[in-house]
Amino acid sequence: MTPDITMNELFSFANKLADASANVIRKYYRNVNGFETKGDASPVTIADKEVEKYLRKLIAKHYPDHGIIGEEFESVNTESDYQWVLDPVDGTMSFIVGRPLFTTLIGLCYKNKPVLGVIDQPIIRDRWAGIIKEFTSLNGNMVQTTKIRKPQHAIIATTAPEYLTSKGKKYFNQLAKQAKYTIYGGDAYNYGLLASGYIHAVIETGLKLHDFCALAAVVRGAGGVITDFEGKELTQFSDGNVIAACSKTLHKAILELV
Amino acid sequence: MTPDITMNELFSFANKLADASANVIRKYYRNVNGFETKGDASPVTIADKEVEKYLRKLIAKHYPDHGIIGEEFESVNTESDYQWVLDPVDGTMSFIVGRPLFTTLIGLCYKNKPVLGVIDQPIIRDRWAGIIKEFTSLNGNMVQTTKIRKPQHAIIATTAPEYLTSKGKKYFNQLAKQAKYTIYGGDAYNYGLLASGYIHAVIETGLKLHDFCALAAVVRGAGGVITDFEGKELTQFSDGNVIAACSKTLHKAILELV
Repeated sequence: MTPDITMNELFSFANKLADASANVIRKYYRNVNGFETKGDASPVTIADKEVEKYLRKLIAKHYPDHGIIGEEFESVNTESDYQWVLDPVDGTMSFIVGRPLFTTLIGLCYKNKPVLGVIDQPIIRDRWAGIIKEFTSLNGNMVQTTKIRKPQHAIIATTAPEYLTSKGKKYFNQLAKQAKYTIYGGDAYNYGLLASGYIHAVIETGLKLHDFCALAAVVRGAGGVITDFEGKELTQFSDGNVIAACSKTLHKAILELV
Repeated sequence: MTPDITMNELFSFANKLADASANVIRKYYRNVNGFETKGDASPVTIADKEVEKYLRKLIAKHYPDHGIIGEEFESVNTESDYQWVLDPVDGTMSFIVGRPLFTTLIGLCYKNKPVLGVIDQPIIRDRWAGIIKEFTSLNGNMVQTTKIRKPQHAIIATTAPEYLTSKGKKYFNQLAKQAKYTIYGGDAYNYGLLASGYIHAVIETGLKLHDFCALAAVVRGAGGVITDFEGKELTQFSDGNVIAACSKTLHKAILELV
């Protein structure tokens, strides 16, 4: 049994994991050495697998009874209250084309709920790290979402229109019609920019737990709101439809668009 | 009259301009201080204006009889054979939201044709600099486009689907159906990645001379092809529809899609 663990200790460990992944990924930046296409048509590189293996080894050594859920390999210790959730390279297309917007996502669920998350961009060295209901920092400095309330004032983002389901398109297109500006690309990096106050809403669909777990903690630690399309808090079992917004009022306005 | 000027001298001067713009822009990174919306709905920041003023001053001092065409102010010396073409911040939305993909574009037209270009990203410090028919370098190292020939093998890019005219959408959607992957966002940065071999084709419409002049030189210096939708070389008077491709064969295949 794991003895009681403080959030501080877990936060510090998550940052060590991000240090480790960053060191591996920097070797492969603009030197990806090809990629395979997975069953779901998403690409996977050597770096994805190498990073995830390395992070799993570190977790297994430090917290042998914790669970691990990763993009590339099978889950372990699925019965544990603590589940580390790993996406070694989020934004694989950005990684493959050499855009420094891809990130490593390290999340932690406790009793099925995201509690802690890191979004790490190892080239620019942007690291958002957050604990739900406590704080989010960017490279050690506390960040907060802006308090924009109206869709008309919002800068909104989604990675690619064709990643959206028809339901996702309905929300996104309605919002885009009203929003001040729309920006594409960016993947998880957009949620870091939302935590920092630069982007005001992100809508995406089809996300997996390894995509959204870390984002949920980073967004909520910074005072933002992130839910599914029914307005429900994200859990380990959410369906992967995500509306993230900088303020409660903007979030409510988006939910009411459809 | 300007005495004969070598391309080497002009190339070196263009790099000095990029050093100057980068120093100004770095002050405003994630510190944009608001923005105005111009008549065409595009945003403009304090940095846009400050950078362009500074570059104009340097050009006027060094080459007083050269022309200057910039995004934010009136053209000068329009009758000169040499026309410096400036976009202080390309990808203003990326700049506003704090994504380090915006660039400064410095191009030179000689007798109405792009001959030299710089795409400078001052935060990651990526600088593509090229001379048509000679070379393109990234931070001093020579780069080349890849020689991918088939749409099926291509990674393609455009900044935002809604920036495309209906004709542009026809080309882009046809290509996207066949292409290996599509990536959004990125603005001029995509053309640098094309020069470096990571992206294989970019389709855009509605570009202004200050958008495409530098790109034309960078892409062609690296062995790529860039034309309008009729397959014609870009000149000072092109209509702003752009197809850029890593190889002649791929470029031809794209032209034949519609």
